[in-house]
Amino acid sequence: MTIKISIDCMGGDHGPSVTVAAAISFLKREPNAELILVGFEDVIRAELKKHKAGDHPRVTVLHATEMVTMDDPVEIALRRKKDSSMRVAIQLVKDGQAQACVSAGNTGALMAISRYLLKTMQGVDRPAICSIFPNQKDGPTYMLDLGANVDCEPQHLHQFAIMGSALVSAMEGKPRPTIGLLNVGAEDIKGNDIVKATAELLRADSARGLLNFYGNVEGNDIFLGTTDIVVCDGFVGNVALKCAEGLGRFVKSVLTIEFKSSPLNMLGALIARGALKAITRRLNPSRYNGANLLGLRGLVFKSHGSADAYAYEWAIRRAYGAVQLDVLARISASMAELMPTPEAHSTSEHSSLITEQGEQKTA
Amino acid sequence: MTIKISIDCMGGDHGPSVTVAAAISFLKREPNAELILVGFEDVIRAELKKHKAGDHPRVTVLHATEMVTMDDPVEIALRRKKDSSMRVAIQLVKDGQAQACVSAGNTGALMAISRYLLKTMQGVDRPAICSIFPNQKDGPTYMLDLGANVDCEPQHLHQFAIMGSALVSAMEGKPRPTIGLLNVGAEDIKGNDIVKATAELLRADSARGLLNFYGNVEGNDIFLGTTDIVVCDGFVGNVALKCAEGLGRFVKSVLTIEFKSSPLNMLGALIARGALKAITRRLNPSRYNGANLLGLRGLVFKSHGSADAYAYEWAIRRAYGAVQLDVLARISASMAELMPTPEAHSTSEHSSLITEQGEQKTA
Repeated sequence: MTIKISIDCMGGDHGPSVTVAAAISFLKREPNAELILVGFEDVIRAELKKHKAGDHPRVTVLHATEMVTMDDPVEIALRRKKDSSMRVAIQLVKDGQAQACVSAGNTGALMAISRYLLKTMQGVDRPAICSIFPNQKDGPTYMLDLGANVDCEPQHLHQFAIMGSALVSAMEGKPRPTIGLLNVGAEDIKGNDIVKATAELLRADSARGLLNFYGNVEGNDIFLGTTDIVVCDGFVGNVALKCAEGLGRFVKSVLTIEFKSSPLNMLGALIARGALKAITRRLNPSRYNGANLLGLRGLVFKSHGSADAYAYEWAIRRAYGAVQLDVLARISASMAELMPTPEAHSTSEHSSLITEQGEQKTA
Repeated sequence: MTIKISIDCMGGDHGPSVTVAAAISFLKREPNAELILVGFEDVIRAELKKHKAGDHPRVTVLHATEMVTMDDPVEIALRRKKDSSMRVAIQLVKDGQAQACVSAGNTGALMAISRYLLKTMQGVDRPAICSIFPNQKDGPTYMLDLGANVDCEPQHLHQFAIMGSALVSAMEGKPRPTIGLLNVGAEDIKGNDIVKATAELLRADSARGLLNFYGNVEGNDIFLGTTDIVVCDGFVGNVALKCAEGLGRFVKSVLTIEFKSSPLNMLGALIARGALKAITRRLNPSRYNGANLLGLRGLVFKSHGSADAYAYEWAIRRAYGAVQLDVLARISASMAELMPTPEAHSTSEHSSLITEQGEQKTA
């Protein structure tokens, strides 16, 4: 079955030079994929030609007259730029012409436009950003929210847990993935009131066999792989994500400096280049690129703004995998099952009332 | 001039086998230091004998009949165990018999007992935990709070910034250290209401030349060394700290596995052992052990509970350095200068009213 994905080619620090290159490379890997490249048509076509893909049979180019910049306030992106590549790419998902959308653009704008066009799922008050971290078990730790919601109430964190559980169940084939609640200690008495109240909700679901709540986890558990999913508010999650990125770069710089510090060290590095290659591969943040905007009635993936073509291709691959594994329907089914229907209806309706005023709080 | 430090020998995962070994090693390094070893006298004396230091002229052993365990609730540690090694060690600071105290015990108990016995400084509502992170500039980034306060108001974060600034000024000899406010983005509009209100307070101080406020920083800035100080609430700080520890261990495990994965890689590692040693040294979390409990009328340092003797010695060294550099007086002077006196008086008096009920919120 053909899977169609729309690409916001103008998004990110590098625009089409990265997004088009990644798209072409991705198409070589996935013979059943089709891509709709959205943005300034002439720029995109020039890039396609560079890659000898000017008439690629599985590429459609869709012109958009505007682009959302990294500095654009959410309101401008949402209200003023109605023909931005970002918005057009998301609209394709809304219209059923694409099954997922990928963008490396401004996160706040991407979330606001996605929410405005696609609406939230039944039972979801606020969508969340979910991505994976590597762990010592050589598997992924899924973590959310990574920055969409800087203030969360217990019911939001509760919803994140349900969505994360359905996502991991679909993506990893684990029927009962474990959920950890990020806290400052493992004991139940630790943390602030919001985290404690969230734990109550999760424990109740767990007792009824609806979720597999492990309990509180700490920052180090993300990398230990203690649980499949780590739930937190967007402020904490964003700090943890960037902290990990920063420390990763720091480690890389230390490795580079020290292995180049003398001819002997360089020789050692040359001989052990297999190990260094494996280390670089396992620690390479590019492989973890591609965050899922969860809780929308459509699949939207966010690439890191500074992604290169290799990293951006990972984001497309992640979107493709989510379509293949029917993630949207599975999360939707989980929300319908686990969220009490009357409240779910009212909050969902309420949250769908987002207007082009862009009043949503995003990081 | 002789500097006396009290050591809670029973604290931490390993107790006297680590704390006494570290004490003896430290005394070799610092000929002007004297240590008061507090805890179960027979156990401490046995450890001293092991290190051929049974009659060390600069060691005093002070018997305490109880110890605070890692699981002890704060109330038990504070109200029931009045002859714990932790409490006796802090009391020595209170009585002027030691100029600083080091403990690897239960953080919540250490903070509560310290606060009860020593009281908070004028102008400080809540003490904070401050420690250092390595950065790409090969210097330390000071970060607070790392877990004492899981909920903070803007005035608390403001006080952390003032205390951190005075600490760095004293410890690093920087007259105007830069202060970053941890947030989910660099722009002023980012973050939650508490962070935004804190930025207002810091900008006002900066405009008056009282503090050197850089602005918002993100998680990666900790390791870039963008600012000398990073201010955040204890929940976020604790997650960031443990996240860094966890990722550090993950990297170490990946390095070990890959360099041992084949004879060729092992040979390369042997040849480049100088580089690997330097890498291990720079990334070794033991070198960053020893967190400062800031805002008390006395110096208290917290070692990681799982510290080995090498790491614990670093905590003692940090305490010793703080005494040498007169950190307490300098922070006290900064608080008096920067905190408006009438409010400072009232809040300080209020916060000193902590009772043995242990009602303080600690992580």
